[in-house]
Amino acid sequence: MGLKVYADRISPPSRAILIFCKVNGIDFEEIQVEILKNQQYSSEYKAINPMHQVPAIADGRFKLFESHAILIYLSCAFPGVASHWYPSDLFKRAKIHSILDWHHSNLRRGSAGLIFNTYVAPVKGLPSYPQVTKESEQILIRSLSKLEFFWLKDGQFLLGSSQPSIADLCLVCEIMELELQSEEDCHRILSPYKKVVRWMEDTKSATAPHFDEVHEVLFKSQKGIREWMTTQSVKTELKSKM
Amino acid sequence: MGLKVYADRISPPSRAILIFCKVNGIDFEEIQVEILKNQQYSSEYKAINPMHQVPAIADGRFKLFESHAILIYLSCAFPGVASHWYPSDLFKRAKIHSILDWHHSNLRRGSAGLIFNTYVAPVKGLPSYPQVTKESEQILIRSLSKLEFFWLKDGQFLLGSSQPSIADLCLVCEIMELELQSEEDCHRILSPYKKVVRWMEDTKSATAPHFDEVHEVLFKSQKGIREWMTTQSVKTELKSKM
Repeated sequence: MGLKVYADRISPPSRAILIFCKVNGIDFEEIQVEILKNQQYSSEYKAINPMHQVPAIADGRFKLFESHAILIYLSCAFPGVASHWYPSDLFKRAKIHSILDWHHSNLRRGSAGLIFNTYVAPVKGLPSYPQVTKESEQILIRSLSKLEFFWLKDGQFLLGSSQPSIADLCLVCEIMELELQSEEDCHRILSPYKKVVRWMEDTKSATAPHFDEVHEVLFKSQKGIREWMTTQSVKTELKSKM
Repeated sequence: MGLKVYADRISPPSRAILIFCKVNGIDFEEIQVEILKNQQYSSEYKAINPMHQVPAIADGRFKLFESHAILIYLSCAFPGVASHWYPSDLFKRAKIHSILDWHHSNLRRGSAGLIFNTYVAPVKGLPSYPQVTKESEQILIRSLSKLEFFWLKDGQFLLGSSQPSIADLCLVCEIMELELQSEEDCHRILSPYKKVVRWMEDTKSATAPHFDEVHEVLFKSQKGIREWMTTQSVKTELKSKM
């Protein structure tokens, strides 16, 4: 009855949990729940997470969902986890909670809204709303700006730390989702934020080789989505000429 | 240099912090930041919370924003706080984090989206989107259903507890915002959820008399908004007859 991690590597919070476990030498079994195949709605998974989302964990009989809560739990429940991930200092811990809460309504909202409306919805044949896409991109850009000029103003990692915390890992995995976009869009959105780009590289290095290994699925999806988008735009162009 | 709480009682997370401090006998100074007057954008307040949102605190030189992070900090930093608000047990604490994280993307997203688009935007002369209003109400209804049939399934308070935690207080203050609606809308949305309604009453009782005192501003705004909405609908009716 060891630790089970229910995850889909296409989801940023799933990747954060998987990388965290691997980097900290936590023994776990990864159970794939493919969201594009709606496996999160199975009755089997409902018993793990009735909210039908990934990631979730089962540690023996203890079940938990919501990625930030899971990362805090793992940091406290597994003694081998290095203290920089979730420092016991009251003030540092409070600031980590503050970033993670901010993440929900800002960076995640912007990034998830943009990716869903621009790529996931068209691929799955679901409706997408241009107004929501526009607003999501605005929220995302504002969030990247806050990261650049506020959260990362004091050092290599968030809050001026020299080593990553669970907040660094969560936020970087979120921003990685932008890689699903075209190369031009990804560059247009990210490149003005030099500190953010450097911090992403530093977080990757601090969690190597697990970061790239867990992100492999994303890179493969990126290739597939980019090809699909090109086919769609060729089709549209052909139609307009007919 | 005691504790300062920057709040606007019209905001649900502000009310949660104020009630928490009063119930737990925490000595603090309340500093009003009126969001309808855009006081959150002043340069003075930017030094407290560069995200321009309420609530925020300054405990001596330590500044913090995001209401969940603040409630956790206050629970740990002030020894007089009763343990049921944020139990030290690893598993209970993990479940409280899980609810608070769930709150961000579900109950809060639904409630805030609905209230903003239906009442705040028209009163402030800002654009509102019927599609967003509709989606927000759907998210809200789904969240109330999850509260009724999952989070409140085991007892009087969340997670089967017999006393409230910071999660109970946050979520009940959020749902109270629905009081800004017309009596019919409020009844239509809330009344199918009997456990939710009882739990709200229990949370009010457990935090009396501070709960009602801090919510007084909301009840006054409710009166003003309902009068304003009636005037607007009379105007629209008159116009349609002209």
